[in-house]
Amino acid sequence: MKQIAMLLYPGFTPLDAIGPYHALSQFPGYEFFFVAQEAGPVSDGSATVIQAQKSISEVNSVDILVVPGGLPAITMARTGDPLIDWISKIHPTTEWTISVCTGALMLGAAGLLKDVPATTHWYSHPELSDYGAIPQDERVVESGKIMTAAGVSAGIDMSLVLAERIFGREFAEKMQLDMEYDPKPPFNAGHPRSAPESVVSDLRSLFDSVLKPNK
Amino acid sequence: MKQIAMLLYPGFTPLDAIGPYHALSQFPGYEFFFVAQEAGPVSDGSATVIQAQKSISEVNSVDILVVPGGLPAITMARTGDPLIDWISKIHPTTEWTISVCTGALMLGAAGLLKDVPATTHWYSHPELSDYGAIPQDERVVESGKIMTAAGVSAGIDMSLVLAERIFGREFAEKMQLDMEYDPKPPFNAGHPRSAPESVVSDLRSLFDSVLKPNK
Repeated sequence: MKQIAMLLYPGFTPLDAIGPYHALSQFPGYEFFFVAQEAGPVSDGSATVIQAQKSISEVNSVDILVVPGGLPAITMARTGDPLIDWISKIHPTTEWTISVCTGALMLGAAGLLKDVPATTHWYSHPELSDYGAIPQDERVVESGKIMTAAGVSAGIDMSLVLAERIFGREFAEKMQLDMEYDPKPPFNAGHPRSAPESVVSDLRSLFDSVLKPNK
Repeated sequence: MKQIAMLLYPGFTPLDAIGPYHALSQFPGYEFFFVAQEAGPVSDGSATVIQAQKSISEVNSVDILVVPGGLPAITMARTGDPLIDWISKIHPTTEWTISVCTGALMLGAAGLLKDVPATTHWYSHPELSDYGAIPQDERVVESGKIMTAAGVSAGIDMSLVLAERIFGREFAEKMQLDMEYDPKPPFNAGHPRSAPESVVSDLRSLFDSVLKPNK
């Protein structure tokens, strides 16, 4: 049985994790588990607490590594963290190393994105360059065995791309139909290129105030 | 502080819950919690275990009730369950009662959908009529204070519609931008109307075999 490990940490964004989980947890021949600094409950800082089945100390190799984003991913990437070291150690053992949202910055800090085309949440896009990545304004970016997704909900799209790469188009289409992913957002505000200017600037200011950007 | 309760039960579909959670947990002036038969860990039957903060016996009223779907929602609706009785009891106290996917069948079994336009996962659509609902082939259906979403990922769209109803369009657009909900599914297979015929029939057969439909 091959293994898929999704990394959790306090403050992770639940939708970054559970979006791709829907398809990934149905990959035939793969066992899916959550991993964290320590096994046990991991909180998003609000009402969601998910159990990690394993600690990073128990996991030395994995077939698919998934790193979801969250605000702490940005700061862990900037300042270093044992989870970053663990990602560096695990990556050489994977078939696929994938990130959602600001999880890409953790891949970057782990040294995985040097000269690699990648994407992340729109707010953090410029920061990809700090890790030597080549920022791409795309929803899903594939480069060798590394796949990165844009912000939060983009992990759903990525999981379908990955499903196709591994199991072929028909399997991926079944996953899409199973989750009825036939999106009809009520507004056209999902990216700064289409959202009203005031919405973009308000949200950018909010992120600036929380993240005290280092640049 | 107003309260949002999301109901969990063994076998719930995590994306049904966490899709709308992203926006709902950021609703200003609302406290969000998970509720289940008993407080404590609730498993989806695979790798996701989420903590319920409260048991149904502790909750007698709530401002927004959210019922996510899952295979057991179909059988609980068919056969009855204490959770169905709890939904019947709580609904008169809510401002909004909302469901994702087959959660709609639980609302139906609780007697909430008589002559009410509603939607659910495409597979279960015909079963809405068993509860007196008027099935709508729509992604999100609003009828008075009841809002129902189609399958799994439709809960994301619904959360944005609800955000607009309560807080106005600009707030909802900020939520959409925050989660970068700018969907780009790699295939056009998210609904039986667009998916390849073989994909639809294979998945329908799989569901038939699991659900032993009672009709």
